Amino acid sequence: MDTSPFTESELTYLSSQHLGRLATVAPDGAPQNNPVGFVYNENLGTVDIFGFNLGATRKFKNLRSNPNVAFVVDDLVSMSPWEVRGLEIRGVAEPLGDADPPLPGMSRQVIRIHPRRIISWNVGAQAPGMVGRNVADQPRVA
Amino acid sequence: MDTSPFTESELTYLSSQHLGRLATVAPDGAPQNNPVGFVYNENLGTVDIFGFNLGATRKFKNLRSNPNVAFVVDDLVSMSPWEVRGLEIRGVAEPLGDADPPLPGMSRQVIRIHPRRIISWNVGAQAPGMVGRNVADQPRVA
Repeated sequence: MDTSPFTESELTYLSSQHLGRLATVAPDGAPQNNPVGFVYNENLGTVDIFGFNLGATRKFKNLRSNPNVAFVVDDLVSMSPWEVRGLEIRGVAEPLGDADPPLPGMSRQVIRIHPRRIISWNVGAQAPGMVGRNVADQPRVA
Repeated sequence: MDTSPFTESELTYLSSQHLGRLATVAPDGAPQNNPVGFVYNENLGTVDIFGFNLGATRKFKNLRSNPNVAFVVDDLVSMSPWEVRGLEIRGVAEPLGDADPPLPGMSRQVIRIHPRRIISWNVGAQAPGMVGRNVADQPRVA
């Protein structure tokens, strides 16, 4: 795609991290929160989540009743002083049934996150502190 | 307290990790997901979350309309083969206004999580794979 929802600093950060945490909401209104691997899909500007039996998981099923997700990728830079950096990606997610997985053995289901709002902490030299933006407001050139 | 909702292996794991991720649900039904520091409160059997201006945060306010939370503490043991270990703690959380913070400079607000269901992956030698239990079903001796 011509534009990415992420800045170059954010893409560099995302590629440096291997584990993210995906929050979904169950039909009863309670959240769940799961560690997952992820891939940035540069063709679509989405974050794609794969797994070993993803279609059978509750997080996959939760999306049918509530497609809203919050996906966070972060790390602890320093304990003293306390400093966390990372990205929270809020958006809507599609549970899809037939994608090519990035690793052999993973199932063909994918959770495809379309970012709607991106909140960053200390990612990129030009963005100290917490910065949030709506994706529609600020498409970025990739 | 006489009993802990966590096993000894789980308490050892929790004390080895410094950052967790807290999922809450906003009034519109969408989740948010935030990296936070945490303390296990052995007197109450709760997980207590502090912060620098916690009372002003959306996650703190979200609890007033929906007290359900999912808190995950995890780490990536190996990328090849892919192996994640960790705990997801689902429960109800109280936004409290006057607690002694564990670090100077933190605010006196606390998010106090009462565990209702604990799901673990590869934590403790006797629990390979994913294991879940309801807290009321299996109180553990601390």
